[in-house]
Amino acid sequence: MSVNDRTEDALNNKVKNVMTSRSKWHVPASIVSKRTVNPIRETVFNMRAKPNPDKELISLALGDPTIFGNFKIHESCIDAVIKQLQSYKANGYLPAFGCEEARKALAKKFSTEDAPLTIRDIVLGSGASDALNLAIGALCNEDQNILLPRPGFSIYQTISQSKGIECRYYNLLPDRNWEIDLDQLVTLIDDKTACILINNPSNPCGSNFSRQHLESIIQVCETYKLVIIADEIYEDMVFGSTKFYPIASLTKSVPILKVSGLAKRFLVPGWRVGWVFIYDQNGILDEIRDALLSLSNIILGANSLIQHSIPNIIFNTPDEFYQDTINQFERSASVSASVLSEIRGLHVIVPQGAMYMMIGINIEEFKGIKDDVEFAAKLLEEESVMCLPGQCFHYPNYIRITLIPPTEKLKEACDRIREFCIRHHI
Amino acid sequence: MSVNDRTEDALNNKVKNVMTSRSKWHVPASIVSKRTVNPIRETVFNMRAKPNPDKELISLALGDPTIFGNFKIHESCIDAVIKQLQSYKANGYLPAFGCEEARKALAKKFSTEDAPLTIRDIVLGSGASDALNLAIGALCNEDQNILLPRPGFSIYQTISQSKGIECRYYNLLPDRNWEIDLDQLVTLIDDKTACILINNPSNPCGSNFSRQHLESIIQVCETYKLVIIADEIYEDMVFGSTKFYPIASLTKSVPILKVSGLAKRFLVPGWRVGWVFIYDQNGILDEIRDALLSLSNIILGANSLIQHSIPNIIFNTPDEFYQDTINQFERSASVSASVLSEIRGLHVIVPQGAMYMMIGINIEEFKGIKDDVEFAAKLLEEESVMCLPGQCFHYPNYIRITLIPPTEKLKEACDRIREFCIRHHI
Repeated sequence: MSVNDRTEDALNNKVKNVMTSRSKWHVPASIVSKRTVNPIRETVFNMRAKPNPDKELISLALGDPTIFGNFKIHESCIDAVIKQLQSYKANGYLPAFGCEEARKALAKKFSTEDAPLTIRDIVLGSGASDALNLAIGALCNEDQNILLPRPGFSIYQTISQSKGIECRYYNLLPDRNWEIDLDQLVTLIDDKTACILINNPSNPCGSNFSRQHLESIIQVCETYKLVIIADEIYEDMVFGSTKFYPIASLTKSVPILKVSGLAKRFLVPGWRVGWVFIYDQNGILDEIRDALLSLSNIILGANSLIQHSIPNIIFNTPDEFYQDTINQFERSASVSASVLSEIRGLHVIVPQGAMYMMIGINIEEFKGIKDDVEFAAKLLEEESVMCLPGQCFHYPNYIRITLIPPTEKLKEACDRIREFCIRHHI
Repeated sequence: MSVNDRTEDALNNKVKNVMTSRSKWHVPASIVSKRTVNPIRETVFNMRAKPNPDKELISLALGDPTIFGNFKIHESCIDAVIKQLQSYKANGYLPAFGCEEARKALAKKFSTEDAPLTIRDIVLGSGASDALNLAIGALCNEDQNILLPRPGFSIYQTISQSKGIECRYYNLLPDRNWEIDLDQLVTLIDDKTACILINNPSNPCGSNFSRQHLESIIQVCETYKLVIIADEIYEDMVFGSTKFYPIASLTKSVPILKVSGLAKRFLVPGWRVGWVFIYDQNGILDEIRDALLSLSNIILGANSLIQHSIPNIIFNTPDEFYQDTINQFERSASVSASVLSEIRGLHVIVPQGAMYMMIGINIEEFKGIKDDVEFAAKLLEEESVMCLPGQCFHYPNYIRITLIPPTEKLKEACDRIREFCIRHHI
């Protein structure tokens, strides 16, 4: 057998092997897609409960302020986008990391003496979820871990697990207005910890950390050299005399990637424009800055009409617009808390901000209801009130309600929850 | 030493180790971000050439039809979006995989007898790049390979490499109007080949496959059980009497994920709305269907105003609008080909569609110019004409020009290229 024959033989064998291995259609989903899970969808889908056909459905489930029609966007936003449409100049590609005018305007609007920003410090994304995806993707490797809040919003887990990053949960303490249990937090940190994610004000808790607590968090991050991803999408959305502190304004040494966007302040979650602000006065995040730009090349950024509209949106919408929104959530928090806190078997943790309230269920006090998922399912079936079970946020035996419906509707939902609880309480 | 003491000791040691390993700030970029590379950005950035200050810059580099102002979007698109803005009902979250009316409208518009579509077969994304990201992400694992065209658009590589998927390049043959070299293609296939990506009409080639060639491709995919990702973003954008065949219309057995979007047909690349159509008459892609939905949970889809506008955009824009666009590209192709094909040292491959033309450079005929990158750099420095070197598309010693500028401008650019070539030709 000549060398040529042998080579040909080997080639034929290779071809035969490939043909055999590919003789039937077999197209499995990728590993990454299988581990990309939305816990809210999973929990609600598995619930399979249907509303009571005799009662109008009131959903307290979705964190979307636009669904009831009681929160309208400001006309400045409409005008800004129409102007761009009519200019014929805002339909083209923009830099993947965001258009310059938009980043300039954001730097001007959100830069402060304590937490300065230039356009180099801003990367735009397609919604705050894309901004989170960029931030987590820039900082974390597959064999590392990320510290996430419990209870916490589910998208952190969705994104991290999708990337094969281990999620470690630090506890928020309901009895201390959902402050972080810092003693427990430090036990989670090891040399594979890539960063910590802090969500303040919090979804689902509606909490707002005090300055003192934020300083304690920063102290831990300084000691353990932990970069912070600060999800502050509900920034400034706090009630009464409480004050919101952007965590970046309280440190010059701990580097921070702050995530926010247009969604909540301007009531346009569907517009999908979010951003990452890089706070890094000591050049610690130089590589991360490049990483964010590289990663933005995958989907090439947010809608151009909205990006071009950002200067007008943020400078022409009066501050009172946001204050009105906040006042309405505060009234709703107060109305619903006053009904719900009187109900035997529940305990309400009155929110200090955002648009949510967490309600604890003393589950052993309810006949034949084994957990929060069953509680939510039966509540929907009997009273047509839809809430999210705490398990969506890794926090069993709580439910989360939103403060979004018109006050009358919210009050009616709370009354129905009361009826439900009276009926099922032992 | 008691058990308790030992446990405490171990704990103390662990804490000490963690403290030591984390005593200094060290925040490297993630591995994924480092392998997420945009070859166009890299090549152009490394070029570092500047235009000739005495001549007005004419860019033939960017595939964005909106930059010169000669292509305007149709008023139906503007009206559609304004209507949504004024309804106050299109600002909220939509399903991550796309809004129902939009998917319904797309199914109605693009369903044919040979390639039927229902709303279940459609997933929307944030631009065609996100749609590609979803399709590649659903089908491919990190240890697998994907077959990509050479020359080919760079985002396939950007997305695949980012996910750690090996890129294998099949050759397109310039002498056969950029048909695939199927003999070479089959040598690339092994049991780790997850899918093949076909881009027709092609960027950068401007080619349009014949029905016969598409059938030969399908035959190979049938034999090797290769799922096709068909990037048909330039669908129907073909010149003269040539006809475009959607590959899905030519097979009932090979499953296809077709990627397209609003960008090219409606001249709105910045609007970032793309889609995946699933063609799978035999249930081969059942897992992939779920995978696409799961992966859409990461960034939660495209802008809601545009999604809600899709029915009006696709049904109210007259077909003549697209035909006018195509006619303009065809004229530009003819004008530029007639100038460029007369230039010694260049060979032009006249495009059959899309908005690009590839021009081969007989590099040994040019004094002191070592490759396409240097050719493009010197052309920019001397004549202020910007083209992309073929290396951006894995195809050295070609340059790609776009057919986008107004005819006069394009003609002037071609004249300058002629002057440049005359000056440098041996």
